Amino acid sequence: MNVAPGVTAPEFISVARGLTEISRPILRRYYRTRVDILDKSDESPVTQADRECEAALRAAIGKAFPDHGIIGEEFGAERTEAEFVWVLDPLDGTRAFITGRPMFGTLIALTQGGKPILGIIDMPILGDTWLGATGHATTLNGETARPRACGALKDAYFSCALPLMFAGDYRRHLDALTAATKSQTFGGDCYQYGVVASGFLDLVVERSLGLYDFLALVPILEGAGAHITDWQGKALDIRSGDQVVAAGDRRVLDQALALLNS
Amino acid sequence: MNVAPGVTAPEFISVARGLTEISRPILRRYYRTRVDILDKSDESPVTQADRECEAALRAAIGKAFPDHGIIGEEFGAERTEAEFVWVLDPLDGTRAFITGRPMFGTLIALTQGGKPILGIIDMPILGDTWLGATGHATTLNGETARPRACGALKDAYFSCALPLMFAGDYRRHLDALTAATKSQTFGGDCYQYGVVASGFLDLVVERSLGLYDFLALVPILEGAGAHITDWQGKALDIRSGDQVVAAGDRRVLDQALALLNS
Repeated sequence: MNVAPGVTAPEFISVARGLTEISRPILRRYYRTRVDILDKSDESPVTQADRECEAALRAAIGKAFPDHGIIGEEFGAERTEAEFVWVLDPLDGTRAFITGRPMFGTLIALTQGGKPILGIIDMPILGDTWLGATGHATTLNGETARPRACGALKDAYFSCALPLMFAGDYRRHLDALTAATKSQTFGGDCYQYGVVASGFLDLVVERSLGLYDFLALVPILEGAGAHITDWQGKALDIRSGDQVVAAGDRRVLDQALALLNS
Repeated sequence: MNVAPGVTAPEFISVARGLTEISRPILRRYYRTRVDILDKSDESPVTQADRECEAALRAAIGKAFPDHGIIGEEFGAERTEAEFVWVLDPLDGTRAFITGRPMFGTLIALTQGGKPILGIIDMPILGDTWLGATGHATTLNGETARPRACGALKDAYFSCALPLMFAGDYRRHLDALTAATKSQTFGGDCYQYGVVASGFLDLVVERSLGLYDFLALVPILEGAGAHITDWQGKALDIRSGDQVVAAGDRRVLDQALALLNS
């Protein structure tokens, strides 16, 4: 393809957009399925939705790009030695999904040589889609997304999906972030990162994430002019660990990193 | 009015439904207003939305029922000696509203002799409306809502809006609930109680709530056949404190109360 270096090919973007047309109706169909007897069997609606969705996405990617690799939460990894590898989380926010709340999404990432070059957060019920790709401006529902300025951690609105991420030894990090920031909210999973890119939230700090949970976020935040790194301030790629910091303003990122490492 | 004792008059229900037609467009207009410089001044979008919405609701109630009392979060109390008193929270979930997330709602309650006889949870962005009234079946978007069975706390999906509600001496209660339940989620404010009524969540335990935050929930949960009390298991009315337990199944309620009081 004749694409400038450092610019994600439009063909990849167009296929990725098409993937959300596949995942949305599947997740919508299983959402709020009544389960009168709760169990954790493989036949739960969340597992069915997750699997059906990932299988459909993999089939579509395999058809469009048979030589690309795919890593998915449900069906594992294939062709990971390929230059281009897709990383899929068909259903991010399973607790929200299970409890009838629309704050779950589908995360789609494309990596090149291990680096994320395209990311989508798609919210099937809310109808919001963030799309980021290297060399392109990040969009929310087609409109350019941009973060807001926030000069200091003390003025920052902070969020994390689940305080239980900070159990045990990590409790002190959550306590420190709570004390250092202006406001704290919990819940939201991938949506939190979208609202950082769009300038409604200043800081997300999380841990215990999988590759599926964060690779898609990188091109979205970076393409908006926001920031996302691991807890050491390093760029996130396919070899990163499970810790993430995202901030709309570099000053908040730096202060959060200093606090996490103090 | 010729209405059977213990049955909320249809006229009240119809006016209450009309109130959501007033609050929705106001909150939608202020939602995701860009605020590039954050401050806490009274001119913030959240304060403007809150005030404009409450003022409009009060005007409509005053016109429909000039002898009814009104208690609202922004503009205080009037005619609280009246038999019928409306209790309004124009914007429940201000942290969600501020951070660009659609999990905020309007809460409308009508009390008679201090007891809640009508309640609405209206979600302006999500488009979901729960309506409960004494002697009527609770509905979500016009369809009958019913909770699900859950036989034991250990099988319960538990939620609270903000873990920080359980700071200090209350920390042990959150730790005990976390250890005793199957799954924990955070965030959601009034929406949590709606999904208990509709059978997608089993337990909510919160404290530090205002009358505005819980009176509307009572007819919704009770009219669905679910349960809501204070932490001592007492019915909630206009004289209640700030603690709430809501459960879809009586067995989960009883076990949660036992745990809170052990």
